[in-house]
Amino acid sequence: MTPFNQVTIIGIGLIGSSLARAIRREKLAKVIVAGDLSKAHCAQAKKLKLVDSATTNLKTAVKDADLVILAVPVGACADVAKIIGPALKDGAIVTDVGSVKQAVIKAVSPHLSKKVHFVPGHPIAGTEHSGPAAGFADLFKGRWTILTPDKQCKPTAVKKVADLWKRCGSKVEIMDAKRHDHVLAITSHLPHLIAFTIVGTAADLESDTKSDVIKYSAGGFRDFTRIAGSDPTMWRDIFLHNREAVLDIAQRLTEDLTALQRAIRRGESNTLFDRFTHARGVRKSVIDAKQA
Amino acid sequence: MTPFNQVTIIGIGLIGSSLARAIRREKLAKVIVAGDLSKAHCAQAKKLKLVDSATTNLKTAVKDADLVILAVPVGACADVAKIIGPALKDGAIVTDVGSVKQAVIKAVSPHLSKKVHFVPGHPIAGTEHSGPAAGFADLFKGRWTILTPDKQCKPTAVKKVADLWKRCGSKVEIMDAKRHDHVLAITSHLPHLIAFTIVGTAADLESDTKSDVIKYSAGGFRDFTRIAGSDPTMWRDIFLHNREAVLDIAQRLTEDLTALQRAIRRGESNTLFDRFTHARGVRKSVIDAKQA
Repeated sequence: MTPFNQVTIIGIGLIGSSLARAIRREKLAKVIVAGDLSKAHCAQAKKLKLVDSATTNLKTAVKDADLVILAVPVGACADVAKIIGPALKDGAIVTDVGSVKQAVIKAVSPHLSKKVHFVPGHPIAGTEHSGPAAGFADLFKGRWTILTPDKQCKPTAVKKVADLWKRCGSKVEIMDAKRHDHVLAITSHLPHLIAFTIVGTAADLESDTKSDVIKYSAGGFRDFTRIAGSDPTMWRDIFLHNREAVLDIAQRLTEDLTALQRAIRRGESNTLFDRFTHARGVRKSVIDAKQA
Repeated sequence: MTPFNQVTIIGIGLIGSSLARAIRREKLAKVIVAGDLSKAHCAQAKKLKLVDSATTNLKTAVKDADLVILAVPVGACADVAKIIGPALKDGAIVTDVGSVKQAVIKAVSPHLSKKVHFVPGHPIAGTEHSGPAAGFADLFKGRWTILTPDKQCKPTAVKKVADLWKRCGSKVEIMDAKRHDHVLAITSHLPHLIAFTIVGTAADLESDTKSDVIKYSAGGFRDFTRIAGSDPTMWRDIFLHNREAVLDIAQRLTEDLTALQRAIRRGESNTLFDRFTHARGVRKSVIDAKQA
């Protein structure tokens, strides 16, 4: 049995198009519709046969949908919700894929009627590439998707969204939105902030040093450039919408970095060795958790 | 024609054992000898058939060598050079693989006779793994090796070392030692310092948050844990021996990070977008340089 009659994906970029591919492969919807304000994205989604139809008219896109997935930058969620809210049919389920949950809930909820079920979600998966062509059906395989429904949310709606993610290959966890934002600030937002910073620092160097830095980037730097190759709009929105948690962990990092700089300056070799050994232990835990 | 009669590798860890494998595969030496103060490493090197013989007696290891490759942590180079210096035969070539060049030159040179040719080197290749079993012959394929000989160094010796690296699959560049240390501080040392810091910051969190951080590490953090999984002794030595250049670039990074934190706090979305777009451009350059 097909779980959904029509699934509409708003924003057919990396995540949206990967979902479209997985939903089609797993036969999770009879009809897949893309709504995207970019004409080029709509055309590409149709050309790649990711969806049955694609339109820049978001109201049209959602009006017959049983499930609407918002796969747009976090900062665009409020505007999208405002447009589609009145067009949603009673009983429709809305979910999203944003890397920040509290701000998205605050942005989206006011625009949805009480007859619509909102199940905020976040698949912890991605690559540094963007756009409909960058997606692939296996993107979510073995990764976690976190759902952060509030207590009023209908359990059957949560289950339907959870089941969709599981069929797409993901493991699913239910979590409080605030805790999600705190954990993700550490595991995802801070690493991206640091990667953008370090690559930016290098980009500011005089041009002959910069070209040597690129040439000899295999020593560690290139891994940061990969992370810093991620979509600027998406990441700007994440930092601005998870401001408090990001600034808190960035402040801790700054203090720890200052302590290591001090240890280097003073030649405190034991401090360095101990800290590095401590960090190495975390690597082992990541491997043991099969997230390496 | 076999370029070397005997090659001795001091330190049969990740880099040393990868070299042994590549030298054997390419038939670059009639005899390969390992010298390593760790009995376990010697036994493993013999068991894995990486070398013809292995000994903890470094003098014995080098006495018939035409080429000696120091593949030990930077901080161990002085002690090793002191031991092997008097045992080297006239005309022998000594090279190394250290990530810092000025400090290694300063540490090694005083212990070598004028009849020995020292060609400092650094292959920009590696993984986060350590030890004889972690190496593989293709580690250097497509990567750069930088040689930093001084002006007195015999060109034929430099050429022999360069040719060995090329046969191992590496591209070779000659560079001034000071410039090497400056460039590598940016491309390799700073990224590792940051990775150790960020992973250490996370390791210090209360234990339930820490386990969530590991569970959801796929959002960026796990890439840092990979880098921070590198050998603590090796990296402690690198930071202490390239102190000035590392602290200089770390200071720049700290300033740039502070500026981004400020932009987040003040909600300066254009600043963030522009900085991230700037950083994203560097990623493209790395891909174009085929170092991605």
